[in-house]
Amino acid sequence: MIKATVFDLDDTLYNSTELSTHARRSAIRAMIALGLPATFDEAYQVLSEVVKEYGSNYNYHFDQMLKRLNVESSKMKLFIAAGMIAYHDVKFASMRPFHDVIPTFIELRKSEIKICVLSDGDAIKQYEKILRLRLQDFLDDIIISEEVGIRKPNPKLFELPLQRFKIKPQEAIYIGDNYERDIVPCKRLGIWTVLIHRGGKHDQPSFSDKETAPDYELSNLKDLISIIKELNQ
Amino acid sequence: MIKATVFDLDDTLYNSTELSTHARRSAIRAMIALGLPATFDEAYQVLSEVVKEYGSNYNYHFDQMLKRLNVESSKMKLFIAAGMIAYHDVKFASMRPFHDVIPTFIELRKSEIKICVLSDGDAIKQYEKILRLRLQDFLDDIIISEEVGIRKPNPKLFELPLQRFKIKPQEAIYIGDNYERDIVPCKRLGIWTVLIHRGGKHDQPSFSDKETAPDYELSNLKDLISIIKELNQ
Repeated sequence: MIKATVFDLDDTLYNSTELSTHARRSAIRAMIALGLPATFDEAYQVLSEVVKEYGSNYNYHFDQMLKRLNVESSKMKLFIAAGMIAYHDVKFASMRPFHDVIPTFIELRKSEIKICVLSDGDAIKQYEKILRLRLQDFLDDIIISEEVGIRKPNPKLFELPLQRFKIKPQEAIYIGDNYERDIVPCKRLGIWTVLIHRGGKHDQPSFSDKETAPDYELSNLKDLISIIKELNQ
Repeated sequence: MIKATVFDLDDTLYNSTELSTHARRSAIRAMIALGLPATFDEAYQVLSEVVKEYGSNYNYHFDQMLKRLNVESSKMKLFIAAGMIAYHDVKFASMRPFHDVIPTFIELRKSEIKICVLSDGDAIKQYEKILRLRLQDFLDDIIISEEVGIRKPNPKLFELPLQRFKIKPQEAIYIGDNYERDIVPCKRLGIWTVLIHRGGKHDQPSFSDKETAPDYELSNLKDLISIIKELNQ
């Protein structure tokens, strides 16, 4: 009997990869409009390198990019400010859930199945996304790794919703886009797993031959409802 | 002969005091909508105390407010995120120059008089304001205290535009709203001074009896043009 659904956030509930790409491209265009001495392609390539090397949660991508482009220091902070404005304006204006999220959440609420978001990352940034996506009223719980001091793929993180809802692993289903960080730890705990294919940066082909293969793979979240009905029969 | 005008930013070129008040009020409303256990008036009074004690450039006003309101720690970051969204949304949507700024800048450019912004504060935040106010194309120079390591009212900060434009003190005029931090140091250097009355938090009555009294006092920036014409005759 499935009593709770636990969702990853980035690239599961909204198109994080596309939005970041779009926002970074806007940031570079804004800097070039102010006189950044580089072509769009040069700057974008350097920024992509920086994001790859420092990870996407690093706060100084633009600083590092500008250093690598040998921008004179008197211009650095002006360009950073321009980049940040363009980046945030695009992100905030374009941040919407995938089209299948709200209909699925409505169905889950009807069935009195709990809904939890469980995400890695900076707590304030992740809460900000949830609020900007206007998901908060659907959620019974929100667990952000920074707040609990445990990160994916540590299985202890995935035990938290079980404890909070007082349910067994086989009464929960986890939906995420990252095989290594979402699916593997849940499988080890005995939580049902759905690998969702959203075309994001962690999206990978099927894993059906592995012991830790996801129980289900979806491209449309609405199909989660029939999976749960099947499991609950 | 006036060759350069140097402007303070906050409460001189845009209504910083009103905007901050409006943004903080929105932030509290957003937190209350999410369940902050306080009335609007309680929360606003506590926030005002925090801003007064820590200064307006401190980055953790909401954190301190929530601590003083004894909000349970599991809710802290959700409330902070909600407050930050509302605060920034209001600030960005409402950030406009005072109505007399652009017409005055256009007149100054016509007369080939240099325009500089000289402001205290965090460089990226101040550049962000200049860009969001869309003032950058009018400005010959921007000097932010954090970037040069000198703060108001140190007169060395006000010598910088003179050096950069290669002009004498009596060829420059400074326009600001803060008597102690803007007018006094400029007067001591021999720079012409305009105290502008915008009704902001540093706005004070006339100082005509002091040795360091401003040379001019204005409530409408457009009158700067006739002052400069007079001085240049």
